Amino acid sequence: MAAAAPPPPPSPTPDVISEDLLPTGYNVFSRIRLATIVDVPHIHKLIHQMAVFERLTHLFSATESSLSSTLFPENSPPPFTSFTVFLLEVSQTPFPLIDQNYPNFTPIHKTVNLDLPITDPQAESFRSCGNDVVVAGFVLFFPNYSTFLAKPGFYIEDIFVRECYRRKGFGKMLLSAVAAQAAKMGYGRVEWVVLDWNVNAIKFYEEMGAQVMQEWRVCRLTGDALQAFANV
Amino acid sequence: MAAAAPPPPPSPTPDVISEDLLPTGYNVFSRIRLATIVDVPHIHKLIHQMAVFERLTHLFSATESSLSSTLFPENSPPPFTSFTVFLLEVSQTPFPLIDQNYPNFTPIHKTVNLDLPITDPQAESFRSCGNDVVVAGFVLFFPNYSTFLAKPGFYIEDIFVRECYRRKGFGKMLLSAVAAQAAKMGYGRVEWVVLDWNVNAIKFYEEMGAQVMQEWRVCRLTGDALQAFANV
Repeated sequence: MAAAAPPPPPSPTPDVISEDLLPTGYNVFSRIRLATIVDVPHIHKLIHQMAVFERLTHLFSATESSLSSTLFPENSPPPFTSFTVFLLEVSQTPFPLIDQNYPNFTPIHKTVNLDLPITDPQAESFRSCGNDVVVAGFVLFFPNYSTFLAKPGFYIEDIFVRECYRRKGFGKMLLSAVAAQAAKMGYGRVEWVVLDWNVNAIKFYEEMGAQVMQEWRVCRLTGDALQAFANV
Repeated sequence: MAAAAPPPPPSPTPDVISEDLLPTGYNVFSRIRLATIVDVPHIHKLIHQMAVFERLTHLFSATESSLSSTLFPENSPPPFTSFTVFLLEVSQTPFPLIDQNYPNFTPIHKTVNLDLPITDPQAESFRSCGNDVVVAGFVLFFPNYSTFLAKPGFYIEDIFVRECYRRKGFGKMLLSAVAAQAAKMGYGRVEWVVLDWNVNAIKFYEEMGAQVMQEWRVCRLTGDALQAFANV
């Protein structure tokens, strides 16, 4: 229940004060920030939930240790030049306005006003730094390259919002954060893949202006086939 | 015509000398090496030929200058940590065995024996360093990341062999070079995309052990839609 806003205080008579001062619902304060190595346990749990949603748990073999060493190696390159994770956090109370701990990226803050409070049954296991801050989702992305544009872009490997936080604009907020970073860096594209049966996601992506490319198929060489082909 | 092997010398009587000494065809010497900034004019022409083949010239806007600044920026990161190009070169004569100019990657050499010489109508415009060395193709790739494996991999953005060099094993040689580098670095996957109507390519990829993933669709946010969404 940590991410649910408290009930609003008793309202004064509507015609006495101006409408924009009225507490008309439940505020959820949200923040997107760069993840660090201390966030790996949360990232690991989020990736596992995503594997469950995508019906792909048979392909899931990540551990906290393997995520730490590959996402946050010693002498990591700067964010955005390699694998980069944005975390979405939510809180019942406002985040501090000055985020001094994240020098490479100014966190994005947004207050979402909801008609009903959010019930988060997993709040305890997703508690983040701060009293009632909870991790609600993430996006993992890295640079890709278009030879036709002769420009880098970003490829989004994963974007995930935990179930109780969906349909509230947080997915759009995560995608928009990556798009904004791409635009800021003069990059040409943001790309990702979607499962063809995930019609809600496809609708969401098309509404935001993305093209869903029907002609392309992803090819993958992995496991024994990769090893065998490497020795050709 | 530079890449076409000269006709073989008159053969001695077959039953006089052992078969493996017989010049039974035309040797084409090939080499895969890391590209450098001086190769950009060739890379630019190859990308354009690929756009023609893929019927996507309306999306082609790369220039030599934009390729140089994005593929080979000042203070480039080491090869394989970012955008990386392998060039395929062919020659009528053997390449020097010691490739002192390419310290980050030991070039791969292979001699291909063909029944017929190759006629290369574009040899002049694809001449590379060395007397009769011609650029025949390239592969551009960069690291990607699998959260399920918690491992990096390589994503191949482009693989292209000029028309007169196709169906001789060079495409496989380029792919294998990337797979070998991935295996050497302990990476989990090599991935790329293929157009669903390119049945020859799909057959080739499946024969080499790659999975063609039918369920996934590529989504792309670019141009005005990217800018608009970045400002949400």
